[in-house]
Amino acid sequence: MAVYTKKIKINTRERIEFVNITDEIRKAVRESGVQDGIVLINPMHITASVFINDNESGLLKDFKIWLEKLAPKEFDYNHHKTGEGNGFAHLWRTIMGRECTVSISNFELDFGPWEEIFYGEFDGQRDKIILIKVLGE
Amino acid sequence: MAVYTKKIKINTRERIEFVNITDEIRKAVRESGVQDGIVLINPMHITASVFINDNESGLLKDFKIWLEKLAPKEFDYNHHKTGEGNGFAHLWRTIMGRECTVSISNFELDFGPWEEIFYGEFDGQRDKIILIKVLGE
Amino acid sequence: MAVYTKKIKINTRERIEFVNITDEIRKAVRESGVQDGIVLINPMHITASVFINDNESGLLKDFKIWLEKLAPKEFDYNHHKTGEGNGFAHLWRTIMGRECTVSISNFELDFGPWEEIFYGEFDGQRDKIILIKVLGE
Repeated sequence: MAVYTKKIKINTRERIEFVNITDEIRKAVRESGVQDGIVLINPMHITASVFINDNESGLLKDFKIWLEKLAPKEFDYNHHKTGEGNGFAHLWRTIMGRECTVSISNFELDFGPWEEIFYGEFDGQRDKIILIKVLGE
Repeated sequence: MAVYTKKIKINTRERIEFVNITDEIRKAVRESGVQDGIVLINPMHITASVFINDNESGLLKDFKIWLEKLAPKEFDYNHHKTGEGNGFAHLWRTIMGRECTVSISNFELDFGPWEEIFYGEFDGQRDKIILIKVLGE
Repeated sequence: MAVYTKKIKINTRERIEFVNITDEIRKAVRESGVQDGIVLINPMHITASVFINDNESGLLKDFKIWLEKLAPKEFDYNHHKTGEGNGFAHLWRTIMGRECTVSISNFELDFGPWEEIFYGEFDGQRDKIILIKVLGE
């Protein structure tokens, strides 16, 4: 059995940004040497998300418009009594999900034709870390 | 350590449909020979979901009504500028989640009394694949 | 390879309640003896959630207010035709997610500074079980 851990630093230019990290995950899977297993990918933060969807710029815009409707940035969140201003970002990350687990077969991500892995940043412009954990043989 | 991969084809009669796949997953777990471990289940598509909830027809209707409220089918999604008409389906899958990971104990799904595994199709009537990955010993 | 399963009983005082279970999970990881691997945590129920977010009381209040907006407790759910009154709880659990998988490194949860694990109960005041599954070496 092999277990491999990798941490990637990320610092987005925008406060809210989607970054396609599929190639980074593919690289980590190759480095792990795992032929058959799984890979877990998650941010080490609570206002960010790792999710799988379509690499289509219109859809990525739709996500932002839709999340703003479900949980507006400007709102009197109780969380803001601490001095924070990122209440919405905790809710957006909840909708988008924290983590993904992906099958590895023949040393590769076992993906359908349109699956791509995104890092969803909702309170960025500062150093963050994405954790990658590979298990298998 | 044992790793087992199985892919199931599915093609729903309706565009939007929930299919109880618990027995298919139980069968795959038995085939894997894994006594103690985990099983990951996910669609290989970005407009479908695998989730765990109650096998109750009223609740399954409620899910559809609720998802329509959170992300209407008829809406001017940016994604539709590509010629696609399934913007809502990407959002519905996001709410319902992409994947599930379930514990295996004594060669069986380690489930509570009401847990059932569903495939949620939001843009069907064409061939799709569900991936099952078993890890354990 | 090591596989370790633990089940924790929980019975919340309130019908809707968030319980920080991070220390319980840390304890289970130490008991497993796993140095490097993953831990899956999920409720064995369909009206409860395990999720990772900030241990800040204002934010936990915000979650309840927000979930009530997305899926009101008082609503004519089809699920209630069975005699049940917890339709909202199935939807809240869907938003918050069923399960989390967390990396283990050096015998510890491989967490960022603010990550904490919560059990989200949406139909409590009765015995429930949280399942913990550790895999690794």
